[in-house]
Amino acid sequence: MFDDQHIKVAVDAVVFGYKDLKLHTLLIKQKYSPFQGWWSLPGGFVKDDESLLAGVARELREEAGITVNYLEQLYTFGDDVKRDPRARVISISYFALVNADQFTLKADTDAIEAQWFEINDLPELAYDHARITEMALTRLRAKIHYQPIGFNLLNKEFTFPELEQLYTAILQKPIDRRNFRKKILSFDLLVETNKFQKEGSGRPAKLYRFHTQKYQALMASGFYFEIKFA
Amino acid sequence: MFDDQHIKVAVDAVVFGYKDLKLHTLLIKQKYSPFQGWWSLPGGFVKDDESLLAGVARELREEAGITVNYLEQLYTFGDDVKRDPRARVISISYFALVNADQFTLKADTDAIEAQWFEINDLPELAYDHARITEMALTRLRAKIHYQPIGFNLLNKEFTFPELEQLYTAILQKPIDRRNFRKKILSFDLLVETNKFQKEGSGRPAKLYRFHTQKYQALMASGFYFEIKFA
Repeated sequence: MFDDQHIKVAVDAVVFGYKDLKLHTLLIKQKYSPFQGWWSLPGGFVKDDESLLAGVARELREEAGITVNYLEQLYTFGDDVKRDPRARVISISYFALVNADQFTLKADTDAIEAQWFEINDLPELAYDHARITEMALTRLRAKIHYQPIGFNLLNKEFTFPELEQLYTAILQKPIDRRNFRKKILSFDLLVETNKFQKEGSGRPAKLYRFHTQKYQALMASGFYFEIKFA
Repeated sequence: MFDDQHIKVAVDAVVFGYKDLKLHTLLIKQKYSPFQGWWSLPGGFVKDDESLLAGVARELREEAGITVNYLEQLYTFGDDVKRDPRARVISISYFALVNADQFTLKADTDAIEAQWFEINDLPELAYDHARITEMALTRLRAKIHYQPIGFNLLNKEFTFPELEQLYTAILQKPIDRRNFRKKILSFDLLVETNKFQKEGSGRPAKLYRFHTQKYQALMASGFYFEIKFA
């Protein structure tokens, strides 16, 4: 039966943040072996009496000092029986989108540092965390085609140029701005404010807010967004 | 560290099959406690030296006598710490689409019976397996909007009416046949044969095959299908 099973259960998180107009991910530096001094995803072993979700939220608080509202399960890595040199460990990975400017990172417990890294400039990662990060990026880029996500990465009020810039940073390729604007507006999920924001040398751009409640209602009804960017 | 963790790791599979023009799922009857005599998903504990995928494939062979080519990871259930009365057990769930007529079911090991059940007529299931089945159905119905899946459920050669009937059975609602036909043909993934099949009282319908290689190449290139049914 299961008494002779010796598999350990960990959780890891890929937290995407948007900073300086670029997509970043949150990494911590390992305090202990077997990857002492290496950068890795925040994460760790699940306690017997906590849910997987509570476990990953706790690790993010402990190792990076951040509280994330919404974590989505990404994938469970457990096909490589030697992915951890200490023991057979499977990892249930999660991903999250946050506004990086809202948090002050603070490393503790198993982490000696916590830091945002631009996704095109990641250090070598411990374990199979490069693969987990890659999968999270692929998922994010796939999702953006059929769900208007990413608003969590921006400030509560944002301009259309800011939204376009975010989508460009996520997809890493230029988008057709006119089609994008028309499509996003057609979902009727943006609330116009009366405020404007000066953008560079151009004329001021209108500030919008995202209609979270309406979005959740649409998603619950099984609505598909189908956004094309090119 | 992890020596004081006592979480056990199981895998479970939701295998969808198409039989008598209806969508079915494969269930087994439990031989042992704590749900002796109950119907459940095929599945069980992972061995220390086998991958998760190898574990679920083995359980399907042992409990139902079937070999499934492609299993997709669905979700890891581990938030309810009491989902198994014996111990803290998390389950990595998988789903698969098969041609039910190709298999002869044969229960063994932990199963005393293996049987296809119509998805609208499932018995009460052990553990949280009703919830897992529900999530697999939701995933299948979501996926069908952006990937031309389901061909695994049919014979190698099929008619358009058969394909429409399958999609109707999966979505459990009528589809717009003309739009559906036009859309599916536009992907250029169906290969016309020179053969015809007599359908009921109507005139014979042309037999098609699915262009698996072309489909895989499209998917690998990040193509999105966007199929609307209504």
